[in-house]
Amino acid sequence: MSIPLLSVSRRTRITPFTKKLEDHGVKAYTVYNHMLLATTFKTVEEDYHHLKSAVQVWDVSVQRQIEIKGPGAKQLIERLTPRNLTNLTTEKCFYIPIVDRNGGMINDPVLIKLEEDHYWISIADSDVLFWILGIVTSGKINVKISEASVFPLAIQGPKSTILMERVFGSAINNIPFFGIKTLNFNNTNFLISKSGFSKQSGFEIYIDDQDAGLNLWDALFEAGLDLEIRAGCPNLIERIEGGLLSYGNDMTIENSPYECGLGKFCNPETVKSCIGRESLISESLKGPAKQIRYLEIDGSNLPNCTKPWRISHNGKDVGQITSAAYSPDFKTYVAIGMVTSTSWHDKTEVLVHAGENKYDARIRTSTFI
Amino acid sequence: MSIPLLSVSRRTRITPFTKKLEDHGVKAYTVYNHMLLATTFKTVEEDYHHLKSAVQVWDVSVQRQIEIKGPGAKQLIERLTPRNLTNLTTEKCFYIPIVDRNGGMINDPVLIKLEEDHYWISIADSDVLFWILGIVTSGKINVKISEASVFPLAIQGPKSTILMERVFGSAINNIPFFGIKTLNFNNTNFLISKSGFSKQSGFEIYIDDQDAGLNLWDALFEAGLDLEIRAGCPNLIERIEGGLLSYGNDMTIENSPYECGLGKFCNPETVKSCIGRESLISESLKGPAKQIRYLEIDGSNLPNCTKPWRISHNGKDVGQITSAAYSPDFKTYVAIGMVTSTSWHDKTEVLVHAGENKYDARIRTSTFI
Repeated sequence: MSIPLLSVSRRTRITPFTKKLEDHGVKAYTVYNHMLLATTFKTVEEDYHHLKSAVQVWDVSVQRQIEIKGPGAKQLIERLTPRNLTNLTTEKCFYIPIVDRNGGMINDPVLIKLEEDHYWISIADSDVLFWILGIVTSGKINVKISEASVFPLAIQGPKSTILMERVFGSAINNIPFFGIKTLNFNNTNFLISKSGFSKQSGFEIYIDDQDAGLNLWDALFEAGLDLEIRAGCPNLIERIEGGLLSYGNDMTIENSPYECGLGKFCNPETVKSCIGRESLISESLKGPAKQIRYLEIDGSNLPNCTKPWRISHNGKDVGQITSAAYSPDFKTYVAIGMVTSTSWHDKTEVLVHAGENKYDARIRTSTFI
Repeated sequence: MSIPLLSVSRRTRITPFTKKLEDHGVKAYTVYNHMLLATTFKTVEEDYHHLKSAVQVWDVSVQRQIEIKGPGAKQLIERLTPRNLTNLTTEKCFYIPIVDRNGGMINDPVLIKLEEDHYWISIADSDVLFWILGIVTSGKINVKISEASVFPLAIQGPKSTILMERVFGSAINNIPFFGIKTLNFNNTNFLISKSGFSKQSGFEIYIDDQDAGLNLWDALFEAGLDLEIRAGCPNLIERIEGGLLSYGNDMTIENSPYECGLGKFCNPETVKSCIGRESLISESLKGPAKQIRYLEIDGSNLPNCTKPWRISHNGKDVGQITSAAYSPDFKTYVAIGMVTSTSWHDKTEVLVHAGENKYDARIRTSTFI
C-alpha cells in the first residue's frame, strides 16, 4: 500500500516533545499506546545510517509508565510477571514478560523499582493499565494504579555516552547496562537508565517535569552539535538487525514468552504467585512448538510487511514473518518471524510468500548485530 | 501541526477491506484498536456533504467484537456494565457503559446478545479484551473470551435504507433503531443492526466470512450506483453536529458515565453485581460536577483540536473542548466539551482558548442535528 496520511486528534495523543519533532522535520508517525511515535525523519535508510554512526534524541513518550504504589505493590508485581524479582533493586531495570492465565503475552515491558512499594512499568503497545485494573478489581490489594505523567526521552547511538557525559558528567559511566540512576542537570534530578530500543548503546531519561524536559532537550542539542546530533526514532531496519521484538508486530496474546525467546525471563517454578504459572510450567517442560527466528531474504522491491508473510519449507507451512526491511549494511532483506521446530535450525533454506511473490530465505538463530 | 504520514505495520492492523478503501481513494487514517480506520476520502468537508445527502459504505472493522461465550457469560456481562439488561433480547443492541471500580469509563461499546450464553461487545478504542481477561483471572467463571474474527461494515446516509432494501429485501424495514436481525444475501446470512456512528440513519453488518464480505461490498456498490454510493468513514464534522461521543477524545477513564451524559444507561441500584456500583450510586445521588456539552465557537481558521482546549467563563476555568470542527451547514465551529455545572446552561457565553488565541463561544445543551 502507498503511505497514507495520519489524522491526529486528542485520542492519538501528542506529547510534550511533538512540537520539537516537527521543528526537526519529522515526516511520519505510528500510533502507539494511543500516542504519537515518530517513525521517520529523513528516510528510514538515512535515519538508520545516522543512528549507527552518531547520536539521536528520541521522543519515546509512548513508553507510558504504569505506576503501582502502595503497601501491596510488591505482591501485585509478583502476580504480574513470571520473572523472579529477588535480585531487583532500585538501581536496576528488569525486562519482564506479562502474561495472561494461558501464558499468552499481554506486554513485554521494563520494570523499574523506585522504592520498596513504588514501581513503574514502562510498557509496549497495549493497555496494561486496564489489564492490571481488571486484575485488582475483585481483590483487596492495597495499591494505587495509574498512568504516570512521565515522558521518556531516549539518547541512542555510538556517540550517546560522550553526549550524556557532557550534560550529566562522568557519573553517567557508572550506569551498567539496564542499570538506573538519578543524575542532576541544571538543578533538576533526572532518572536515567542505560537502555533503549536500539543496539547502538544509549540511555533513557524519564521526564516527569515537562519544562525541565524541554530545557534538557535544548541542552542536549547544544552539547551535541559537533557530534552531528539529530532528532530520531526507533529505526525499523536497525531494530530488526538487532532482533529487538515489537509487541503487536512480532508477538501477540497468541504467543507464549517461550515462543518469543523470553524463556530466560520466566521462572514459574519459583514465582509461585504469578498469573499463567501452570501454562508456563507445562510449556517450559515440553518446550515451545515454534519460536522467534531471524531471517535473511533474497530479492528486491519487497512490499512493506503490513501483515504476516507465510514461510514454507519443502512445500509445508512452517511459520510467518512479521517484520522485514532491506538492510543497507547487510545487503539483504532482514526479518523477524515465528518458525516451527522442524525448520527453525540455523541456515535452513525456506521460501517467504510476500504479496504475490515467493522469495528464497535462510533462517538464522542469531541476530544480525 | 501539519498532517504527517502514517507508517503501517502488522501492529496497526490492516482489515479485509483496506484494499477496497485504497481502490476508492482513501487519503487518511487514524489508528483505532490497533487497526486502521479511514478518516478522509476526498476532504472531510466533501465527505460530510456526501454523507448527509447520499449513502456511504464504511469499513469499521476497528469496532472489534469481544466475544464472551459459555455458561458464565450472562453473569460476567452483569459484572461488566451498570446497565440493566433485563430487556435485552437477541433482537436488540444495547449501548453499555463499561466502568472501573471508581466508576471511570473503560469503554462505551454496543452489546449484542447472540444466544443466552453468547455475546459480542462491539468496542470503542481501548483494550477491553485485556480488561475482561484481567477481571476473570482470579475467579472461576466459566467463559471463553476472545477477539472474534468479525469485521463490521457500516452503511450510512439518508439513502442507506433504499440501498439495503435492494440488497437484503424489504425485511430490512422491520429492523427498528438499535434492533438486530439476520438477513440473507446470495445464500449467506449476515447479522445486521440498525445503528452506526452517524445521525444520517444506517445499518451495521457484522462480517464473519471475509470472502462473503468482499462480495457483499461489490454488490452494495453495484446496487447503489444511481444513489451516488461512495466509500466513506465516520465524519468528524457530522459526528460533532450529532453529539456522538468518541472514547479517548471526549471521555477517558478520568470521566464517569454521568459526566458523559450516559446516566440513562446506568442502573447501579438494580444491577447489584456491577463493577463500580458504589461509586456510581454515590455520583448518581449527588449528580456530576461537570458534564458533556456542545458548543458553537465564533472565529475562523482555528487549529485542529489535537489536545484539550481550555474553556473559561468570567475569567475562571470551567472546562475543556475535546473535539471541534467547522460546520459548513451551521456556518460556525461546532464542538464537544466537558463543562462544569456553574457554566453548563444553554446559551452561556464562554471563551475558548485554542492555541495562542481566544474565541467567543456559546454552550448548547442540545446537539446540532
